[in-house]
Amino acid sequence: MSFVSIPDNSHFSLRNIPFGIISTADRDPRPAVRIGDHVLDLKVFTASGGFSGLSSFKQTNVFEQSTLNKFAELGRPVHRAVREYIQEVLKANGKFSSILEENKELKSKALLSVDVVKTHLPLQIGDYTDFYAGRNHAYNCGCILRSPQNALQPNYYHIPVGYHGRASSVVISGTPIHRPYGQVLTNPKAEVKVPEFIPTRRLDYELEFAAFISKPNDLGHRIDVNSAEDYIFGYVLMNDWSARDVQAWEYVPLGPFTAKNFGTVVSPWVVLHDALVPFKAPTMERPPDVGDVLDYLKENDSKSGHDIDLEVEIRTKEGQVSVVSHSNTKFLLFSFPQMIAHHTVTGCNLQTGDLLGSGTISGESDAAFGSLLEITKGGSVDVKIGSSTRKFIEDGDVVTFRGVAKGDGEGLVGFGDVACPILPAIPYGKSNI
Amino acid sequence: MSFVSIPDNSHFSLRNIPFGIISTADRDPRPAVRIGDHVLDLKVFTASGGFSGLSSFKQTNVFEQSTLNKFAELGRPVHRAVREYIQEVLKANGKFSSILEENKELKSKALLSVDVVKTHLPLQIGDYTDFYAGRNHAYNCGCILRSPQNALQPNYYHIPVGYHGRASSVVISGTPIHRPYGQVLTNPKAEVKVPEFIPTRRLDYELEFAAFISKPNDLGHRIDVNSAEDYIFGYVLMNDWSARDVQAWEYVPLGPFTAKNFGTVVSPWVVLHDALVPFKAPTMERPPDVGDVLDYLKENDSKSGHDIDLEVEIRTKEGQVSVVSHSNTKFLLFSFPQMIAHHTVTGCNLQTGDLLGSGTISGESDAAFGSLLEITKGGSVDVKIGSSTRKFIEDGDVVTFRGVAKGDGEGLVGFGDVACPILPAIPYGKSNI
Ligand SMILES: [Ca+2]
Ligand SMILES: [Ca+2]
Ligand SMILES: [Mg+2]
Ligand SMILES: [Mg+2]
Ligand code: NI
Repeated sequence: MSFVSIPDNSHFSLRNIPFGIISTADRDPRPAVRIGDHVLDLKVFTASGGFSGLSSFKQTNVFEQSTLNKFAELGRPVHRAVREYIQEVLKANGKFSSILEENKELKSKALLSVDVVKTHLPLQIGDYTDFYAGRNHAYNCGCILRSPQNALQPNYYHIPVGYHGRASSVVISGTPIHRPYGQVLTNPKAEVKVPEFIPTRRLDYELEFAAFISKPNDLGHRIDVNSAEDYIFGYVLMNDWSARDVQAWEYVPLGPFTAKNFGTVVSPWVVLHDALVPFKAPTMERPPDVGDVLDYLKENDSKSGHDIDLEVEIRTKEGQVSVVSHSNTKFLLFSFPQMIAHHTVTGCNLQTGDLLGSGTISGESDAAFGSLLEITKGGSVDVKIGSSTRKFIEDGDVVTFRGVAKGDGEGLVGFGDVACPILPAIPYGKSNI
Repeated sequence: MSFVSIPDNSHFSLRNIPFGIISTADRDPRPAVRIGDHVLDLKVFTASGGFSGLSSFKQTNVFEQSTLNKFAELGRPVHRAVREYIQEVLKANGKFSSILEENKELKSKALLSVDVVKTHLPLQIGDYTDFYAGRNHAYNCGCILRSPQNALQPNYYHIPVGYHGRASSVVISGTPIHRPYGQVLTNPKAEVKVPEFIPTRRLDYELEFAAFISKPNDLGHRIDVNSAEDYIFGYVLMNDWSARDVQAWEYVPLGPFTAKNFGTVVSPWVVLHDALVPFKAPTMERPPDVGDVLDYLKENDSKSGHDIDLEVEIRTKEGQVSVVSHSNTKFLLFSFPQMIAHHTVTGCNLQTGDLLGSGTISGESDAAFGSLLEITKGGSVDVKIGSSTRKFIEDGDVVTFRGVAKGDGEGLVGFGDVACPILPAIPYGKSNI
């Protein structure tokens, strides 16, 4: 139990201790951990000797940075030691109670209410890669674009399919995104195909789970799937905003581009790999007829995925609110270690701060799908949100993701909210580009 | 004329003055310009008051950095002033001859033979995007994959097609790349499609032209095509190494991934946008039946492309050498300003140091194609290299690109060599990943 009071339903129990970057009116961005409805400012904590009880941890200057990259690159043994130490420090009457609990001055300086802090992108992202490991999502999209018989491409069960995404436009929860203009083929049946330039009519979210990379690998040198967990710093939830009509026209033959590079939103608190170990679970079962994966993707760990409940809430501009989906990370066919092994298999180098998205995570029914494209069957049926209805997202709507590992009732480990508001398009004109 | 002797065939005449990053045995990486077979060390030049004749240039500390990002972000008017000033300084009996020509001590410290310097990646690259604007290449690939009738997708003449590439594996000329292992569908005709894990058998280069971004734009705010040139710092040549067999199996439906993320090689000297202005030329003509581009891609400038001769030389491991292609940047359908306008059209933010590749540039005959896939008709006919033959690149081969704007005979403006050696694959094994 912590001396910081933690609401029962908080995602940020003493078991979690996720890391993020915060600022306040008079503090520049710096690392912090979250506990209940408070954050511990690690720059202030470090400067006041907060780590004096952890003599193995010499690199405390990583908490004077404005991103977590320097901390991430110290590697998993250090992340584990620091997290476990902070848990001890935050315990009521723990062995380090003199450090913070009994140190009124430091407590008042370092322990802040979440209400007074702003969160920032937790790591500087060199490259961002988005996978497509949500089997049900891939199948549903294949049914909409093709047919149930050949919904999944022949490579799907063999390759953790992925593509390079846009790192610069990854933003933190709460960042409003303007509805994009783009090229849309408004009349797909026309003989001569001529696009129009319009604000997207099919703005959609994608419910994803994502991992930040800690250790880099050298160019030309593969990462073994069975060591790959050690390259993961931690996890966030992610909304891969997508303009479906733009995507449909542009994606052949080189994949999505402007349809997905206008904003990708992540949750502010990075839940460390170790914090999710108690919630490890098998990835999706493979159908018997597709055979096994290639050797470089074979894992010793039978629980290389996670059991984390996910939900999608939409608040309409009219003020109606509904949770439109309940999903779970167990609906991923490939694990992050498999994605990492595949990403580096031809020799690609990963770097500290790289972000890997899982792909959209859909469960097995309409009420569990991770995108509106799937829920509304390609925009052909409505989804109810209170007394409103939607086919796709409208200006003024806010999409919120939540994710939490419930486990054994010992305290929740979750991600908080990823809030994603949509603003109207910026009108196009020669003088107002 | 410069007081530095410049060979007649040098790509680095006084008209060029490209910027790069160099180091020597006892100098850490720092900015330099190239002139003939020499480089001017800008860190040393700056420290000795070399810019005392250019009072408008206050930010000389940009030349104390280990990348050109800080210089690039100063914007085009500063790049122009600094380049023109350096041209004056390097002129024989110029108005600034006291700065360097007559300053023996500084000359001996700051002007180094290229033989003693090592070049480095000129900018830190946040995101790298590869376009597909070489119309002949797109057509040739379409013929190999589909048929001449529908070689180009319906979107091709409307969209500067592109995809997000991998920034971490962009490397400098000379960097050897290991032949990648990857997933290959060795028996594409089998009823049940099962890939093998093998070293690629179809290792290919792609001859590309590329631009580095100087000024950033804000997320959500488009760049006008007619202002887009001001966002370009300068240009390099680029080899987008590609494993064709891996690509064929993986690229559906989200585009190339591991087939193109194991190494992308750029030339070391960034030729500034202004240095290529005299060589501007129209982009490829559009066939009359496809109509015009959408308004946001319409340019006032009728010469938004360039006329730069390109060549590809292969040196085989047996020691045979041939130039296998002569091409030209005029075989691009879209200009870099159009690529920039399109890249940002849905609101994507570009950042200083971002790299945009043109796509493979093929001329109109086998002897002008920019990849072996095209020259060998998908690996079905041999290309002769002296007394050797190749269908694709073998271990020990070196591919070299060259590019030069010939113009009016007043001195060449070119890129030097992009040398790309290939090493054998690193064997796969549990203990030797
Ligand atoms: Ca996605
Ligand atoms: Ca390419
Ligand atoms: Mg990047
Ligand atoms: Mg990047
Ligand atoms: Ni090596």
